[in-house]
This record gives sequence, C-alpha cells and structure tokens, in this order.
Amino acid sequence: MLRFDCDYTEGAHPKILEKLTITNYEQTIGYGEDQYCREAANIIKKKCQREDVDVHFLVGGTQTNLTVISAALRPHQGAITVVTGHVNTHETGAIEATGHKVLTVEDNEGKITAKQIQDVYDSHFNDASPEHTVQPKMVYISNPTEIGTIYSKAELTSISETCRKNNLILYIDGARLGYGLCAENNDLDLPTIAKLCDAFYIGGTKVGALFGEALVISNEALKSDFRYFIKQKGGLLAKGRLLGIQFATLFEDDLYFEISRHADEMATLINDACNKKGYSFLSPSTTNQQFPVLPDSVIEKLKQDYAFSYWERVNKTHSAVRFCTSWATKKESVLKLVDAIEKA
Amino acid sequence: MLRFDCDYTEGAHPKILEKLTITNYEQTIGYGEDQYCREAANIIKKKCQREDVDVHFLVGGTQTNLTVISAALRPHQGAITVVTGHVNTHETGAIEATGHKVLTVEDNEGKITAKQIQDVYDSHFNDASPEHTVQPKMVYISNPTEIGTIYSKAELTSISETCRKNNLILYIDGARLGYGLCAENNDLDLPTIAKLCDAFYIGGTKVGALFGEALVISNEALKSDFRYFIKQKGGLLAKGRLLGIQFATLFEDDLYFEISRHADEMATLINDACNKKGYSFLSPSTTNQQFPVLPDSVIEKLKQDYAFSYWERVNKTHSAVRFCTSWATKKESVLKLVDAIEKA
Amino acid sequence: MLRFDCDYTEGAHPKILEKLTITNYEQTIGYGEDQYCREAANIIKKKCQREDVDVHFLVGGTQTNLTVISAALRPHQGAITVVTGHVNTHETGAIEATGHKVLTVEDNEGKITAKQIQDVYDSHFNDASPEHTVQPKMVYISNPTEIGTIYSKAELTSISETCRKNNLILYIDGARLGYGLCAENNDLDLPTIAKLCDAFYIGGTKVGALFGEALVISNEALKSDFRYFIKQKGGLLAKGRLLGIQFATLFEDDLYFEISRHADEMATLINDACNKKGYSFLSPSTTNQQFPVLPDSVIEKLKQDYAFSYWERVNKTHSAVRFCTSWATKKESVLKLVDAIEKA
Amino acid sequence: MLRFDCDYTEGAHPKILEKLTITNYEQTIGYGEDQYCREAANIIKKKCQREDVDVHFLVGGTQTNLTVISAALRPHQGAITVVTGHVNTHETGAIEATGHKVLTVEDNEGKITAKQIQDVYDSHFNDASPEHTVQPKMVYISNPTEIGTIYSKAELTSISETCRKNNLILYIDGARLGYGLCAENNDLDLPTIAKLCDAFYIGGTKVGALFGEALVISNEALKSDFRYFIKQKGGLLAKGRLLGIQFATLFEDDLYFEISRHADEMATLINDACNKKGYSFLSPSTTNQQFPVLPDSVIEKLKQDYAFSYWERVNKTHSAVRFCTSWATKKESVLKLVDAIEKA
Repeated sequence: MLRFDCDYTEGAHPKILEKLTITNYEQTIGYGEDQYCREAANIIKKKCQREDVDVHFLVGGTQTNLTVISAALRPHQGAITVVTGHVNTHETGAIEATGHKVLTVEDNEGKITAKQIQDVYDSHFNDASPEHTVQPKMVYISNPTEIGTIYSKAELTSISETCRKNNLILYIDGARLGYGLCAENNDLDLPTIAKLCDAFYIGGTKVGALFGEALVISNEALKSDFRYFIKQKGGLLAKGRLLGIQFATLFEDDLYFEISRHADEMATLINDACNKKGYSFLSPSTTNQQFPVLPDSVIEKLKQDYAFSYWERVNKTHSAVRFCTSWATKKESVLKLVDAIEKA
Repeated sequence: MLRFDCDYTEGAHPKILEKLTITNYEQTIGYGEDQYCREAANIIKKKCQREDVDVHFLVGGTQTNLTVISAALRPHQGAITVVTGHVNTHETGAIEATGHKVLTVEDNEGKITAKQIQDVYDSHFNDASPEHTVQPKMVYISNPTEIGTIYSKAELTSISETCRKNNLILYIDGARLGYGLCAENNDLDLPTIAKLCDAFYIGGTKVGALFGEALVISNEALKSDFRYFIKQKGGLLAKGRLLGIQFATLFEDDLYFEISRHADEMATLINDACNKKGYSFLSPSTTNQQFPVLPDSVIEKLKQDYAFSYWERVNKTHSAVRFCTSWATKKESVLKLVDAIEKA
Repeated sequence: MLRFDCDYTEGAHPKILEKLTITNYEQTIGYGEDQYCREAANIIKKKCQREDVDVHFLVGGTQTNLTVISAALRPHQGAITVVTGHVNTHETGAIEATGHKVLTVEDNEGKITAKQIQDVYDSHFNDASPEHTVQPKMVYISNPTEIGTIYSKAELTSISETCRKNNLILYIDGARLGYGLCAENNDLDLPTIAKLCDAFYIGGTKVGALFGEALVISNEALKSDFRYFIKQKGGLLAKGRLLGIQFATLFEDDLYFEISRHADEMATLINDACNKKGYSFLSPSTTNQQFPVLPDSVIEKLKQDYAFSYWERVNKTHSAVRFCTSWATKKESVLKLVDAIEKA
Repeated sequence: MLRFDCDYTEGAHPKILEKLTITNYEQTIGYGEDQYCREAANIIKKKCQREDVDVHFLVGGTQTNLTVISAALRPHQGAITVVTGHVNTHETGAIEATGHKVLTVEDNEGKITAKQIQDVYDSHFNDASPEHTVQPKMVYISNPTEIGTIYSKAELTSISETCRKNNLILYIDGARLGYGLCAENNDLDLPTIAKLCDAFYIGGTKVGALFGEALVISNEALKSDFRYFIKQKGGLLAKGRLLGIQFATLFEDDLYFEISRHADEMATLINDACNKKGYSFLSPSTTNQQFPVLPDSVIEKLKQDYAFSYWERVNKTHSAVRFCTSWATKKESVLKLVDAIEKA
C-alpha cells in the first residue's frame, strides 16, 4: 500500500533527524528561549526581510490558530472565513472553545474576496443595533487553501487593503505554505506576505519537520504578551529547542523550498495523468493536494493499492478524491500511481 | 556551565532518536491511530495490569492537564488541589481559561490529605445554598509533587477512598512519575496507581522523551469522546506515531524505570553533599528535584559554574534553591557539583 | 408616533403591577426559593400536565438560551439550528462565548426539518474521523420562529422522534410562545410541547410580563445542578419572587393565553390590510409579527407616523418590514395603522 | 417571623412602583436606549460630577461583575481580590467561567491594602518567567466589603495610586454602596469614587430597587463596545426603561441616600444592643450588615422569631451571625429584635 492520503505520513527530512541527534546532549534552557530558537527566528526574519517581526514556534496548526485568534480578539469579536476554512470545519470547535464565533462566507475555489470581507464589515457596522451581533475583527485565510488553490499577489493585496482600511486583523494559516510558494502559478513570497498580513504561520508539520509551525507576527498589539497565550493554551514546548533546530535546518540553504518544490512537481504528475484521462477536478489546485473527480469504479480499483482520501460525491457515478504528495513522496511511487490511473 | 536548573535541558534518550531514525520513512496514518501508538498503549496497559484502560498520547503537561480537566468537569465544577499544585501556579490560568475554578487547600510538604478533601466536600455540600459556590468534583494531585515529595500507598489509598465515597474524580499529574516510582522510599507502582485513580499521566517530556505524556484513563465516563477534546485543545499530534514510538521505546525493557532510577541516584548524591554540610531542605524530597537551603554566599559562588533555580528566600542570609537531575545527568557532572558544594 | 417595532415597548399587564404592589412589603427569602416561585412553578406544571418537570425562572431570553445550552453540552458538542435562529444571529455570540459552536442549516420559512437534523447527525457520525469536527448534540428551535411561523404538531413530533432516536437534546426557545399557541393555525399545546422536548421556555418578556422567562426542563440529566448554572451565568435574580409573582399572575385564569390571542388578532388585522392591498409577505406568519413586502414609497409614508422595523431589501422598489403587535397593542392604534396602509 | 437574613427580602421603594405604574403604557424603544435610561444616566453623571463617564444599567451584581471583568481583561490576565471577595466566594465561578483566574490575598477586615496589590504585582513581574503565571491586571474591591466594613478616602486613594502606577484597572463592586456612603465613619462620596477608580457600580437590588445596578465606567478602553458585552452575557434587558425609571427615581431628591441612611441607623441599633450585652463582633461594620458573635444558646432562642444568617463558628460555644437591615426595615421590627437580644 502506497499512501497519498495526507502529507504527514512519514517522519522528517533526514537532515532534521541528523541535527537532533548531533545536538542531543547539549544543554539548553527551556521553553523556546535557547540559541536554536533564536537562530531559527533570525533566519526567518531575514527571509521575510523584516527585523521587526516576532517569531514564535508552536507544535501544531490547530494550536497555533486557536492561540492567535484568542490572543487577537476581544470576547465579542469573531473571525471571518470561508465555509471551507480549517477553523470552521476541522478543528472540533477549537475557536469557539476560546469563546469566539467563526463568521462564514461562501468560498470561491477555497478563497475569500476583498468584497466579501467589506460586505460582512458593512453589514455589521451599518446595522442599527450592531451590539446584538458578533463584531467582525479578523480575517482568517489559508494559503494554500484547504482545496489546494493559492492566492495571487493581487488578491492578497486587495484583501490586505480592505482589512487595513477597516481595522481588521489579517491572519494567514500557512500549514502548507511551502507548497503554495513553490507552485508554478505563485507570485507571492515571504516578504510580501509578511508585509500584507498581521500574522501568519509557516507550516513545518506538513513540510519536512517532525512537527512544528513558525508563527510570524508583525502587528504590534498582537505581539504583546504573546508567550503567555502559548503557555496558557498548552503550546509552550518544554524542549523548545526541538522546534528551533527543525526550523533552522529547514531554512538554512532554503531546504524548505527545495522539498516543497519537489512535492508540487510530484502533484503535477498526478494532475497530468488525470487530465490525460479527461477527468475533471474539484478545484484548480497547483499545489501538493489534487482533487480529481473519478469514476467510482476507478476509485475502487485504485483503493486496492493506494491510500487516498474520499472527498465527496459529485454525481451518481463519480466522486472527488484527494491525493497528497509531500516532501517525502518518492517519484517511483508517483509513477506507479500514474500508471495505475492511466490503466484504470 | 553545567545545568541543573530543570529536567528538560537535553534532547532524548539515544534509543528514541535511533528508533525515530529507523522508522523515518515508514508511512503511517496520522493522529495517533498508527501501529506504534497501539503498541505503546498495549505495553502501558500491561504495565498497569489493566486491559480496560484507555491510553492517549499528548505532547505536554499543561496541555494534558487542561484537556483532562475540561473533559471531566461540567462548567460549575472545580478541581481541588494544594496551593503549590502546578495547575494553580504555573500554567498561566490554563484551567480557568477552560472555565473552571481551581479550589485550593494548604499543602503538607506538597501533598493533600484525604481529610482536606473531605472537608472541602463537606463545606460545600453542607452549605444551605451550595449553588452559589463552585462544586468540587475532582481532586488533582501531582506525584511526585512540585517540591519532590511522593505519596505513599497508604496516603493515596486513603485519598482514593475519599474520592470514591464522594463521587470525586481523582487525577494524578505524573510529569515526573518515573522519578517518583523509583525513589527509595516509594511503595507505589503502576497497577496500584491505575487502580486508585480515574486518570493519570506518565510523563515523558522530563523522563527521557523528546516530548510527550501518556495519559491513562480508567473512568468510563471520562473515556467517552476523549479524542474530540485532544483535538479541540490543539493536542492531537498529526504524526502521532512520534509519541507511540517514544513511549514504546521507553517501556520496552523498562528503560523508563532504569533512567528514572539513575536520576534519583544522582539527586541522592546532591542531597548527601548538602546534608554533610549541615544544610536543611525545603522539603524531604527523595526524587530528582532537591531543594536545599543554602547561605546566599554559597549560592553566589555556585552560580558561577552551575545553573540551578532560585526558589525562595528563607531568611536574611539563606535561600532555598532547586537542583534537578534527569535521565541525562552525567555522574561526572554531579560529582563536580558535589565537590563544589563541599568546598563552597 | 405609534410603535409597532417590537413587542416590548410597554411595561407589563396591569394585573402584574397590581400584584407587585400588593405584595411589596412581604418578606420572602431570595433567589427563587420563595412561595411565589413555588406557586408559579406548580401552575405551570399543571398546565403542562407534568408533575415531574423542573421549572426555573430567568430574567431574559439570551440568558436562558446560553444557560441551558452551556448546561446541556460537553465542550466538544454543538447545537443545530437554522441560520435564522436567534442564537445564531442576535445574541452577540453568547453561545460561542460559553465555548460551543452553533451548527447551522438553511431554514424553511424559519423552520428546521427532521430530515435536516438526521442529515447533520449522519454526516458527523459517518465521518471516518468525527473527532475533528464538532459533535451535534442538541437541536435548538424557536416557536414561533424568528419570522413568525409556527411548528405543527406533526412537524414537532417528527423532530422529537429524530432527536430521541439519535440521543439529541431538543430545546425550544419560546420567547413568543404564547403568540404561537394562540395562532389560528396552531395545533400544539403546553402538554404536547413538554412531552416532545427536553427543555423549553415560556416567554414572559414579550408576553405581558415586565421581564422574565419560565424554563421547563423534563430531561433528567439537564435538571441536575441547574441552579448552579443560573447563578454562574448571572441569571439568579436576588428577588426571585418578582418572577414568581409575574408568572403566577400570567397563568392564573389563563391570562397569558388571553393576551396572546389579542396580539394575534391585532396582527391579523394588519395582515388583512396588506393582503387587501395585494402586498406579499416574507413569511406566512400567523403570529404577532407580520413581515409584509411594501413599496419603498409606502414605507417612507408610514414611517412618518408609525415605528416599525426595516427587515431587508426584496427588490429595487420593495422591502420587507416587520410590524409587531403585543399584549399591549390597542385596537384603535391598529385601526389607524390599517387605515394608513390602505390609504398609502 | 421577622427577617433580617438579607437585604433583599422586600420588593422596592413605593415611589418606584408608583413610577412604573404611571409610565406603564408609554411606548419606548428597547435595550436601554430610551429616555428614562438617558435621564437616569444624566442624574448619575451629575452626582459623580463627571460628564465623561459612561453609565450602563444591568440587572444583577454577579452579572455586572462578570461582564466588567470579561470586558476588561485579556485571556491571560486575572483580577486581584481578597479571599473574602464576592467574586471569589459566592458567584459559582462566574469569573473563571469567562476564562479568568481570581488572584487572592488575605483580607484585612474584608479589605485589601495598596501594599498587597504592589506585592502581587512585583511578585509577578519580577519573576524570570512571568508568562508561566497569570498576569495581574485588575483590582476588584467591594465597598462596603462582604463583612460590612468600608474603605476610607485615604485607603482608596492609596489603592488607586498603586493601580495607576502599575497600569492596573481598579473596579469597585458597590452592591451596597449606599449603605457604605451613609455610614457614620464614611469620608467617601460619588465624585471621589468616580475619580479614583476605572469602573464601579451603584447597587440598586439591595438598596431600594426591585433589581438593577448602575455601572459607571470612566476608563476609556473599557468604555469601548461595552454594550456588546452586556448583550453577550445575557444582561441587556429588553425593557431597559425599567432600570432607567428605577435609578432616576432613586437619585431624584437623593432618595437613594435617604433610604441608605435609614438602614445604617437601624443597623446601629442592633450593634448597640449587642455591644450593651458585651458581645464581640466578627468585623467593625458600620453599615447595614452586623456580624455579632453570640452564644449558641442565644442564637437558638432568637431563631424562633427572627430570620438571620449563621455565618461561622467562632469557638465551642459561640458563633458569628449576620443581621441585615435595608431601606425597607421597619423601626418597630428592629426594636423587637433589640429587645429580644437584650432579653436573650
């Protein structure tokens, strides 16, 4: 069985394990105040071309999202997201558990538009009695989105301008950021992202690390006391250096981008194979997640040798599925899958 | 500088890194449903002599505490603990952030007594209007305690009986459980603990693992839907196998106890050295944390070469400090410290 | 200016003020444990033909909703409602502030169907990893709905059966219950409602009282410790007797139904006037809220002498508005409005 | 049976009922935006000699406390109070239910000192890792305190200076404020209180109203969006005018102070009677709550004809009890009690 069901089926890039092994007996202070965390933070600041951002390392994505959102909002405020946003669908109400409503709008290939944001804002503040409804204060987007699409520089700029005009915080969930930044049709980069939003995180869990997310905060108000929140929400890793070591390794020599690019290329092979067979797609994804719509009979056949996710029924005879590649995906495995798709 | 300031200054026991490296390219499903987690859970069940407990793996201690407590209590209920309890002092209000009051009683060398629990219970339920105060529903204890002492079998039995009589949930924070179970004056073991309480966790972060805690739940009501809580609180590790691999390694061949015993022996050497100099102790700790009361001048001298924690002022010229040993502490380092204490 | 903008523009039915005045200097114990609360609870139990329900009196609707929902759900559970449900739209995230997600489905003239409930349930529990999403555990409905429609006995029975089959709690927000039970097309009554749901409240604030809602709980699990929740959420009125006196007055001699019927009759006059003019309606309301779709020019004219709520734009030249009647609405005022509508 | 067990045994001052009756059929808009609320707010502003404060009306004390505290603090912050503070003892964890730890210090006759506040502040901010503990951000005091004592102008000034120096919010629970301001040894007044703290409330429930508390906010940050919080926490009364009418009535012609003075005088009679008999007191209360320490035999006798609160056991033969007077206490009732005490 070859697994394409998610992008966290293997451990970590071998350089990370090497570095963990080499440094194993060094003694460092705890909770992310060691030299490795400092070093990793500095590299990331340089990659963002911003000396003034704060960088924190957390263990997982849901944890990062709930920590940022609960730190950023007052109790009567909510975060705007598309209905397919991860915080709305797959975090077991983690945001609501910190007291905040998730305010949803329909997605456009997984994305939100600046106009939708403005409409939610206007609809609230033009109400005669706004205090009877949750006040929109943050915009949460994922890049790439949950269905593999990416925001263009123009789209993100427009969203950012709308947020700043209306004093809304813009936060980007970058669980798969590497795969987005290395997509062929991408025109964003870390400095642009750091400039356009108030906070974002660079996902490590799904992009080469054992675990870990690097949160970058540029908004001054949000920086304040942020370590208290990480601790309170259970996200302050005792051996914080494990995170520092991993992110330093990933961003030295741009390993992060190199392995992301590989995953996207592997995904393109799968996309091509499906295209060649005339299959349509649930979304125009150019990143490591591909959502072809396959005949149910083909799905049944492929399932015998390949693990992938059933996504949703499209019509009586066809369903959308998800194939994921990652930093760890071997080309030979993809070629086998491609062959199987072609033959199915 | 040799560090004795905490028990998480190094990485992990080398066998763990080896195992992580060997298994690195294996593909497993995520979120703790892989074979390594199953294997580790099975070993732990065997060590507890209980097939019917649920075992979950979480990343850190505060996370485990807040997840258990919020899963166990209804909103109007609180957890009883001593004032020095970790949930009361060093978790940035993590328990309150889930909505629950921490109900405190004075500690007795870090411990709570069955009588104190009964008194809190009676005081609440004998009140004419109990609904105006938080209902005690859980007892939280740490073993070893935050100041290194341990509960005897008789003490824990008495606490357990009081809890069961009054329908109180008994939860044990075992962040340093190994160091407790291997103390020379200990008469508890895993089967006894599993029998006497409703839930407890076996600490990995401070006892040989890179990170991770193994939560053992015997209470049926608390077992229900527990994975939802781990996910909601941000504690469900995507690559759950990392936890399974670590705990399987720690409990195969009783490595966990072997390395714990070593740490306790190292602590005894420090204890002996202080004793020999006639220093008193803040607590009669027999575990890996030692709290000698030293002249301030001695503290100043030792600080030049050794890292340790300043604990509290005892009188004008003396203060209590904390020395921690761990699975990773080298005997030669301890001997140097001992020598320094003797000469100071 | 005659006000039809809501159903809480006046004080209370004069019998209530009389009774408050007569009893003013009586001394009673506090927090709802006085004889008036007992008396009112007993009358309500009789009206429900259920001796075994618990009756609690709270001050307001949002307070009642958030108290019930937070008492009924564990942290990982949510309440299903239509998008137009009051808890989803007009309570400033009160439910989320207690930690729970509101799970929404599209409304059908303000109502939810048994099938929609079953679909949400199945969709969750058939998921391979349900623990990544909020567990549906309660169904929240309003009767009458937020747009004035009412559930039939058949509809409510079907919803109730679906809830019981799936172990879902059914809770009815009866902020305007009187106006629903007295509608001409209504076939529900208090005994049927008490039998079909787990908890519901009989609204007083909008139906003749100064303030106050009578919560009726039949579900045993939900009864437990309920007064703790009222206190914790700030809803335990010190002079609880004020609520007891009001509800005793409203339910003696069926005053509650008499005044509700009056309001519905007044609403029918407005409905008839709009019908006669050929205006359509946003919803087929038979209760005290009427939502005609009026030409904007007519709205402008009426606004000069009458207060009513602008609801939403329907097309370029027409908008829906809301006219409310209540126990206090004078027939002469309605006739003036009717005349104005006819002439506009 | 004559009741002295609390200060909310009767309804409301008759002038309030009269005014409610006279205005009953007036139509007003809801949620506290009517002319009566505006009028009451203006009178209170004048009494405080501050045009720039915000005045909000809420229904009850616990509700006011939890709303203010949750609006004022970020999630990692807590409120400092004495252990006997109402928020710590008798609100069923209402503050914790909004996510905040209550940080306690020992009380001094019910009061906190400026030095205690400074010590808590220093202890936190001087810690090497403050982010592991809850950040003190607010000071909560009650005046009069829960045991009837009052703050002097010098004490409150010193507390206020300490708070401002350290950027701590000072909030005063004035559930019985009238009884404090009219005590013979009081040297505070509304303008001084409004100047020294960030927010305080003037209790109506226990001082002549049917229910209701008038919250006065001078802190700019706390003013922002405050109505959202009232709504979210379930405290926004639909017929807000009921609160406006009550407070306008209480503060026109200084009725509030007149009736408070009466209650204090009645309490003095009880105090004198106990003094004459040589009974000691739990606290040096000069307000409407008196806490004499009585022989148990006397308590048994008095219980036959008088309701009062058993407070706590003092020694084997004596216990402290609480007698409350209020605006409604009749002198003839007090004289009977005094006589009974003398004869007991």
